[in-house]
Amino acid sequence: MPGSLAATPEPPYWAVVFTSVRTPDDPEGYAEAARRMLDLAAAQPGYLGAESVRGEDGVGITVSYWDSPEAIAAWRAHPEHRAAQSEAGRWYARYAIRVCRVERAKAG
Amino acid sequence: MPGSLAATPEPPYWAVVFTSVRTPDDPEGYAEAARRMLDLAAAQPGYLGAESVRGEDGVGITVSYWDSPEAIAAWRAHPEHRAAQSEAGRWYARYAIRVCRVERAKAG
Repeated sequence: MPGSLAATPEPPYWAVVFTSVRTPDDPEGYAEAARRMLDLAAAQPGYLGAESVRGEDGVGITVSYWDSPEAIAAWRAHPEHRAAQSEAGRWYARYAIRVCRVERAKAG
Repeated sequence: MPGSLAATPEPPYWAVVFTSVRTPDDPEGYAEAARRMLDLAAAQPGYLGAESVRGEDGVGITVSYWDSPEAIAAWRAHPEHRAAQSEAGRWYARYAIRVCRVERAKAG
């Protein structure tokens, strides 16, 4: 979540790295939907945490952490999340989603 | 790099997710070192790309992509990178490094 780092368990676990470039369209609607999606993700089974930053240049990175690929698949298929996904073409000039297995971690 | 997304090959490949919270210390020195580290990383064998964002709240996420864990280990051991790592306690209130295997990717 904004302003903080995720407290995750020992690896292995899973990460979804979502990187995007915003269009100038619909800043209020987007901000509200983005916040809602982070809140909704946090309520899903298998959710471990998330970190999200958007820079002044419109580039954003959100990383969410999950205990299994099945938890990620279930979150991807959530009806309200699906509805948000259908807005991707309006909100993002470009985006990439990478599903990753976290093998090692170090914190300081 | 700032303002753009990385163009990566088909998975599998590797990602290093570096999340941090900046201290207020040494903004100019930090900005220069951060830029230099991104440039130096881009010159290493096995480097595939990077995305980096820092928000106004001091939270930053940098994701660099690599073709193997060996490439990540070599970059971690680079002398100039090691020197920068030794400043982590001054630059960051908190940080986390996660080494991940990218299993699936989708771009839009």
